[in-house]
Amino acid sequence: MITKDKKILIVGLGLMGGSYAAALTKAGFEVGAVTRSQHSIDFAIRNGIIRHGSIEIEAGYVGRFDIIVFSLYPKTFTEWIEKYQKFFKSGALITDVTGVKGPIVEKIQHILRPDVEFVAAHPMCGKEVSGVENASADIFIGANYIVTPTEHNTEEAIEDCETLGRILGCTTISRLTPEYHDEIIGFLSQLTHCIAVSLMNCKDSKDLVRFTGDSFRDLTRIARINDSMWSELFLLNKTELLKQMDLFASQFSRMRNAVENGDTNTLKEMMKISTERRNYFNKI
Amino acid sequence: MITKDKKILIVGLGLMGGSYAAALTKAGFEVGAVTRSQHSIDFAIRNGIIRHGSIEIEAGYVGRFDIIVFSLYPKTFTEWIEKYQKFFKSGALITDVTGVKGPIVEKIQHILRPDVEFVAAHPMCGKEVSGVENASADIFIGANYIVTPTEHNTEEAIEDCETLGRILGCTTISRLTPEYHDEIIGFLSQLTHCIAVSLMNCKDSKDLVRFTGDSFRDLTRIARINDSMWSELFLLNKTELLKQMDLFASQFSRMRNAVENGDTNTLKEMMKISTERRNYFNKI
Repeated sequence: MITKDKKILIVGLGLMGGSYAAALTKAGFEVGAVTRSQHSIDFAIRNGIIRHGSIEIEAGYVGRFDIIVFSLYPKTFTEWIEKYQKFFKSGALITDVTGVKGPIVEKIQHILRPDVEFVAAHPMCGKEVSGVENASADIFIGANYIVTPTEHNTEEAIEDCETLGRILGCTTISRLTPEYHDEIIGFLSQLTHCIAVSLMNCKDSKDLVRFTGDSFRDLTRIARINDSMWSELFLLNKTELLKQMDLFASQFSRMRNAVENGDTNTLKEMMKISTERRNYFNKI
Repeated sequence: MITKDKKILIVGLGLMGGSYAAALTKAGFEVGAVTRSQHSIDFAIRNGIIRHGSIEIEAGYVGRFDIIVFSLYPKTFTEWIEKYQKFFKSGALITDVTGVKGPIVEKIQHILRPDVEFVAAHPMCGKEVSGVENASADIFIGANYIVTPTEHNTEEAIEDCETLGRILGCTTISRLTPEYHDEIIGFLSQLTHCIAVSLMNCKDSKDLVRFTGDSFRDLTRIARINDSMWSELFLLNKTELLKQMDLFASQFSRMRNAVENGDTNTLKEMMKISTERRNYFNKI
């Protein structure tokens, strides 16, 4: 049960960690943070995002929290657990926001102390800017929230993790296997970022700004991207991402050939399908 | 000079024609329309978008107007000119909103009566819905407006056409050759529509709605597309569009290979370039 007396620690006070902290503080929880930069902690305290924080990882601080939310790069997250899990309060619930699940969930659950539990989660939201300075409690409102429990998790902990998603403001909470999560995120999120980055790499487009409509803007919004984090995420999900990239390339090539051959029927058929399917995604 | 006593005729009262009419009516002009559907005319009169309209193409009506704006599919536009240009008032200024220029501007200017002038234009805006029922005077506000004059045009008519763009609310007005227009529109608009349509054709994505973030939504907004109009536009701009599609495919393939080979350096480099370039496109 996520009662209001639970103390929540955010590890990694960037855009997502900061937004998570802001939303939980707003919901009335006592939220602390561990992060590398004193500046981020000072900013977050000054702006009412957290109540307190530390750049040191110490038993006396980490051990005070009932719920710990990791918002780190995947590899740093795994290393952190290996090195500092000894500081966790017994019975703590560990969760995260990491964008890949297959390669990290099993690994962490395998090495984790038996008296704490890790339920992995992924709030499907973000911003194309980084840092706690850009954090916002609002990014979760109406967003999708995916939980990827395994046989190592108890129903109670899974439900607590889902409750956290609802407290953040997420409206649709789903349970997926880590593998299926990585497949659909490979398609919905990683592939779309690959497309946006590739498109932006085609031309030195500075001069095109005065000619463009909103199509190009929309397709490239996410081309502003944290290169360290996303290259790590892409490579951790390599097999799945390659499948999704190849699937897209085959459809794009089909369209290219239809243009080359003046094949109006195929063009219209593809456009009719895209129009019909896109209607599913209209926000209500 | 575009004085307020000029009477303006819109030919083709769909989304773009209707929006054009709405913006000019709002600016104080007397705006009429010729279109195929009496229902569209009734709707537009009832909603103050036009003052009058006709489903018949007659000298008595068409000949009343000083400025005529064509908002038809490219082929229909050319046929219309061939068949009915005899009805134009002598000295009339003809303009349009057509999405390709190379194949139509020269053709129309070649067959056009010498006592009227056609200055081609392309307001870079739209909506992913169609019909005068969805028309809005606001779509032009802050948009880019491209004029593609040729040696057949007088400076006075070109300036009048640019003034029309400003009256609509467009802020950046550019003059391009029809050929360069088609190249950049092949990249900025047609290629992005090809990408969105291809992406939406990858999977029956109905079940993915509850997992998605905004990236997929943004990349596929324009996948809701008028298949008759866009397949015609694509094929009229085939050579240029194929060039742009191949350019994108080569960058996408570069990224795919970097993922396959675990080539973090290339991934990061592409992301750094995309981040830097995307900053140009932030709206001020």
